[in-house]
Amino acid sequence: MSALYDPERSRRGFKDELKSSSMIKTDIIIIGAGPTGLFTVFEAGLLKLKCHLIDALAQPGGQCSEIYPKKPIYDIPAYPEILAGTLVDNLMEQIKPFEPGFTLGERAETLEKQEDGSFIVTTSKGTRHHAPVVVIAGGLGSFEPRKPLIANIGLFESKGVEYMIKDPEQFRDKKVVISGGGDSALDWAIFLADVASEVSLVHRRNEFRGALDSVEKARELAKFGKIRLYTEAEVKEIHGKDELHAVVIKYNDQAKEDAYVETDYFIPLFGLSPKLGPIGNWGLEIEKNAIKVNNAKDYQTNIPGVFAIGDVNTYPGKLKLILSGFHEAAVMCQFAYQIINPDKRFVMKYTTVGGVQGFDGTKKEAKKEVVQSIN
Amino acid sequence: MSALYDPERSRRGFKDELKSSSMIKTDIIIIGAGPTGLFTVFEAGLLKLKCHLIDALAQPGGQCSEIYPKKPIYDIPAYPEILAGTLVDNLMEQIKPFEPGFTLGERAETLEKQEDGSFIVTTSKGTRHHAPVVVIAGGLGSFEPRKPLIANIGLFESKGVEYMIKDPEQFRDKKVVISGGGDSALDWAIFLADVASEVSLVHRRNEFRGALDSVEKARELAKFGKIRLYTEAEVKEIHGKDELHAVVIKYNDQAKEDAYVETDYFIPLFGLSPKLGPIGNWGLEIEKNAIKVNNAKDYQTNIPGVFAIGDVNTYPGKLKLILSGFHEAAVMCQFAYQIINPDKRFVMKYTTVGGVQGFDGTKKEAKKEVVQSIN
Ligand SMILES: Cc1cc2nc3c(=O)[nH]c(=O)nc-3n(C[C@H](O)[C@H](O)[C@H](O)COP(=O)(O)OP(=O)(O)OC[C@H]3O[C@@H](n4cnc5c(N)ncnc54)[C@H](O)[C@@H]3O)c2cc1C
Ligand SMILES: Cc1cc2nc3c(=O)[nH]c(=O)nc-3n(C[C@H](O)[C@H](O)[C@H](O)COP(=O)(O)OP(=O)(O)OC[C@H]3O[C@@H](n4cnc5c(N)ncnc54)[C@H](O)[C@@H]3O)c2cc1C
Repeated sequence: MSALYDPERSRRGFKDELKSSSMIKTDIIIIGAGPTGLFTVFEAGLLKLKCHLIDALAQPGGQCSEIYPKKPIYDIPAYPEILAGTLVDNLMEQIKPFEPGFTLGERAETLEKQEDGSFIVTTSKGTRHHAPVVVIAGGLGSFEPRKPLIANIGLFESKGVEYMIKDPEQFRDKKVVISGGGDSALDWAIFLADVASEVSLVHRRNEFRGALDSVEKARELAKFGKIRLYTEAEVKEIHGKDELHAVVIKYNDQAKEDAYVETDYFIPLFGLSPKLGPIGNWGLEIEKNAIKVNNAKDYQTNIPGVFAIGDVNTYPGKLKLILSGFHEAAVMCQFAYQIINPDKRFVMKYTTVGGVQGFDGTKKEAKKEVVQSIN
Repeated sequence: MSALYDPERSRRGFKDELKSSSMIKTDIIIIGAGPTGLFTVFEAGLLKLKCHLIDALAQPGGQCSEIYPKKPIYDIPAYPEILAGTLVDNLMEQIKPFEPGFTLGERAETLEKQEDGSFIVTTSKGTRHHAPVVVIAGGLGSFEPRKPLIANIGLFESKGVEYMIKDPEQFRDKKVVISGGGDSALDWAIFLADVASEVSLVHRRNEFRGALDSVEKARELAKFGKIRLYTEAEVKEIHGKDELHAVVIKYNDQAKEDAYVETDYFIPLFGLSPKLGPIGNWGLEIEKNAIKVNNAKDYQTNIPGVFAIGDVNTYPGKLKLILSGFHEAAVMCQFAYQIINPDKRFVMKYTTVGGVQGFDGTKKEAKKEVVQSIN
């Protein structure tokens, strides 16, 4: 399980929207910034529709970023092999001209239909979004952190305890305790070793499970004291008043003395697991933990104006494959266009023929043929 | 219109099957080697099904290879930009482990259902193919050459007159007359300048329409006498006994004297245009020049065991996009599997998890994670 923050990707890709009580307005609200949600921005953009994405994760890419960013996929058409993380990077580059908005690290909680048929989607942090069309591209559900069993941990959430890392700059020159034994814990410990003033890595076993180079890099940093390693040990207590102040680390071997470690942050990285969550209560027809859609036409749900595409939907013959989400996005956007522009008719042009006009003023176009005499 | 022969592609990609009166047997006969037909080989291969492709063109790639190989496409998911020819190359590389067979330069003429429910497909050259499942991925139809209006041209077809170039080696040290004014005529004249003993290029105008570099290259070769240029002129007569012997070129300016040019080959390259052709008589339900399919399930036609995917099919909301053909191929293969293996159940594995086992003995696999102690 890895969620390595790639500052390059973030700089290139998305800007975080202003989080205020004010309303974010757009043409299409996309819940889920996995590969399906991301590509929807492109197809919508070709139809001159603007999109805003909401994701519970701190970074775009869905399962590809969260579960297997460094693993190859072999069945993306025309890519004999591509790393899941590269797939996400390429999608981010492809949609950039259409300037998608992002609300990241927040879960979409409620969907409210307005009198005029439009929708308001509100997140766990109260951010509100308003649009005539909602696309649920929620995959297997919103990724929720697995939390350690420490009685008072809830009191310190966002007050020193973080379950995912959104902006590593937050930890500059701070003391950080990370716990976990997978890619995510390893990669963040390595990354923060250069950012934080002190990094401790706590893992309940001696063995770590991760990419070979991550394990080796972490070993090296531990050797040079850049990471303080506590293995066969667990964080068992959290101390502090309003804010986190220290954690107590207990060893499996009870003969060993507990460590009382002062810290600004405690970041348990035990992996995230997807949960359909609040979407299940929006009045959508659910079957086998997925949303039923009309695949014979437009991938619309039983609520007109709400579409469901990618892993989150189900229909006869459904394949939970990335390439299916791409097709569903293209088809769905045509119908979203009709909802948003009931009186217009959009004549589809091949991108090769019509080019791609970005909302950011960029323009991609095929070189014109020349007509020229030879002699 | 370009059909530049890329020897590299051909060497890497496909081998021509033995053309004999014997029967080619396979699991799935695919009619049409455009992007949709090609990707079908991959999806079928994951299910351990073998494919054989038939195409009227001399090279795989369909519209992408025949009409716009050097133009960029912008809406292939995760490719912000890719040349149509590169897309085809990448698909050829991706399907290579599944060793597809190819019958190229032949049009599928007849489809005969056998008593056991299987099918025999016979081409314009009499090549016969036998399989339990047929997939029509015929795009806008089989590409047929536009022929010049010369009364006796039919007598010399395959006896010196060729409308497409399958194997340029056929022209080594021979005299060749090409006519046409587009990319295809330009590119082949350039390519054959190094192969044939003599290349003449005849065009009815002075101006050529093609990629800038092709026009420039042809101009240079003409200057150095490697290509003999006849512009504002047309081939009007064909002479020979059993085989082509010479052509007569007449200038638009009737004051200019006709040229009598001895040649082994006359290759008019006036472009190919797609025609649904014989497929229209196979008893399939046709609507708007396309084949109706059940998009709510499996993309099967009204003939059980015959599927239609890609540009050639139609259903409510159909988009004639490359990415849609890819999705349709993936779904369709699952149902083809059930027809071919009625008693088996295939449990789909992600390629990332299960890897790709080629029929050629190759194996692609994600690197395993390591479990290792750090200190
Ligand atoms: C190990 C592994 C290997 C795989 N290999 C392949 C393969 O080889 N080929 C292939 O085609 N597929 C493969 N897959 C499947 C592929 O990753 C999925 O099909 C794909 O990620 C689905 O994309 P999506 O955008 O529909 O959903 P997801 O990628 O699941 O993204 C959905 C996003 O929605 C967010 N979300 C959900 N609900 C909410 C909410 N209420 N509020 C905010 N955010 C929400 C989630 O946090 C998540 O980020 C693999 C999957 C795994 C786990
Ligand atoms: C100029 C141009 C620009 C385009 N730009 C884009 C774009 O930007 N994005 C996009 O998604 N799409 C684009 N397209 C469309 C895209 O090329 C098609 O959707 C795609 O080629 C369809 O693939 P296919 O495999 O279904 O059919 P095709 O590519 O048409 O291939 C079908 C093949 O079947 C063969 N065939 C048919 N009948 C027979 C028969 N009886 N016997 C033997 N062979 C037969 C034909 O010869 C052909 O080679 C563009 C098309 C053009 C012309």
